[in-house]
Amino acid sequence: MKIKNITFIGSGNVATHLSISLQDKGINIVEIWSKTTKSAVLLSEKLKCNYITDLNNLSSTDLLIVSVKDDVISEVISKIKDKNINIVHTSGSVDLDVLEDFSNYGVFYPLQSFNKEVEVDFSITPICIESKTSEFSDSLKELASKISDSINFINSEQRKQLHIAAVFACNFTNHILSISESILKKSDLDFNLLKPLIEHTFNKIKDSSPSEVQTGPAKREDYNTIEKHLNLLEGKSDLKIIYSKITNHIINNNLDE
Amino acid sequence: MKIKNITFIGSGNVATHLSISLQDKGINIVEIWSKTTKSAVLLSEKLKCNYITDLNNLSSTDLLIVSVKDDVISEVISKIKDKNINIVHTSGSVDLDVLEDFSNYGVFYPLQSFNKEVEVDFSITPICIESKTSEFSDSLKELASKISDSINFINSEQRKQLHIAAVFACNFTNHILSISESILKKSDLDFNLLKPLIEHTFNKIKDSSPSEVQTGPAKREDYNTIEKHLNLLEGKSDLKIIYSKITNHIINNNLDE
Repeated sequence: MKIKNITFIGSGNVATHLSISLQDKGINIVEIWSKTTKSAVLLSEKLKCNYITDLNNLSSTDLLIVSVKDDVISEVISKIKDKNINIVHTSGSVDLDVLEDFSNYGVFYPLQSFNKEVEVDFSITPICIESKTSEFSDSLKELASKISDSINFINSEQRKQLHIAAVFACNFTNHILSISESILKKSDLDFNLLKPLIEHTFNKIKDSSPSEVQTGPAKREDYNTIEKHLNLLEGKSDLKIIYSKITNHIINNNLDE
Repeated sequence: MKIKNITFIGSGNVATHLSISLQDKGINIVEIWSKTTKSAVLLSEKLKCNYITDLNNLSSTDLLIVSVKDDVISEVISKIKDKNINIVHTSGSVDLDVLEDFSNYGVFYPLQSFNKEVEVDFSITPICIESKTSEFSDSLKELASKISDSINFINSEQRKQLHIAAVFACNFTNHILSISESILKKSDLDFNLLKPLIEHTFNKIKDSSPSEVQTGPAKREDYNTIEKHLNLLEGKSDLKIIYSKITNHIINNNLDE
């Protein structure tokens, strides 16, 4: 089955980027539903398509892409009475089986962090596909290949681990950088001072495993410096704990836990 | 005073990169001393200069650059009997005052992470200078400007905070990426899957404050997903603690601690 017409359930960051990107590649976006009508209207205006408010009044379509918050997926799809429909969700951490009442169901998870403001290059964004039948897998693969060069068949268990790994690699590294920025700010120092070091750090892992290029006091087991740092973090109990937990994790080198 | 002749005390990563870079810009490297003669020989061969084994047999020089491990700086310099000499150390976390017995003393701290194998672009590496006299500061500034476009006058207290911030921004982010890699490995997934997401994460902070572009379950206060992740990390006690400490730090948003 060739997917030519798609309906989006949801109008958040993922739905916005994905629908625009698919439309750019010639897919017909049938209509948009969102819990928040205002948000559905906004995205449907961008796409020059319809929006709907009643999930039981869906126009004919080849695929429903459910792109709502993880914890409301079940609730939203339970409102769709007609189960004779092709459906996928786009979540990194929700089981495929949540959609099992539908005739064809799958996962279409773009592994990227989406802000409405920041453009995303879909061609290098890995699309993680899961489905029970090879026929539906093939349809999803063909759809994914319109927007991305990285198509991956990944099962629910792997996808959950991938999602945790992504939280570490993206959300946690970003927060660690926020911590650096706040430390500098308190000493009247500009975050730009650290930018070359940060760039160097991320360039290194383009071709090397991060575990092989680890540097710093913990890696050298330079306990003097570690103690100095912990003393300087005195009174900042949260930062001190984060500093020591990560430091100990580097020293103990227990990545195989 | 114009610095034309430099002696290196130490032959590790910083000494290696810095001496080569200074020589490239026309500075005469007089000689190299290292606790490990073999290492002094190696660097002196690279530089085609002399090496020495006796710190009290130093040839005449304009500046001693002490680039040894933080915890042996005091011990090494105490062996230099002639204190009528210009001297700097290159450490991010050691006080200026450790050198106060010398006639002119300062800090010349290149803010970068050095591996012997990986080339460093010194022109964008911030050089952090500290000294008690404006005359010596000026000499150090002139020297730094030969290799870098980013020269910064930073006092010992600021430098210590900068060093902690660098440990977070460089060493800790790298380790967090190692954690991601290890999680993927255990699920037979390739770390390359995460590379576009990591690149996106680091591109974002080139123009934005990391605290303003934070995303993820913690930022959304998506407690369902957080609980799922903590369950999946069951049995991996260290990772679970690191996950919850960083997650809580994002949720509580206490960067001003």
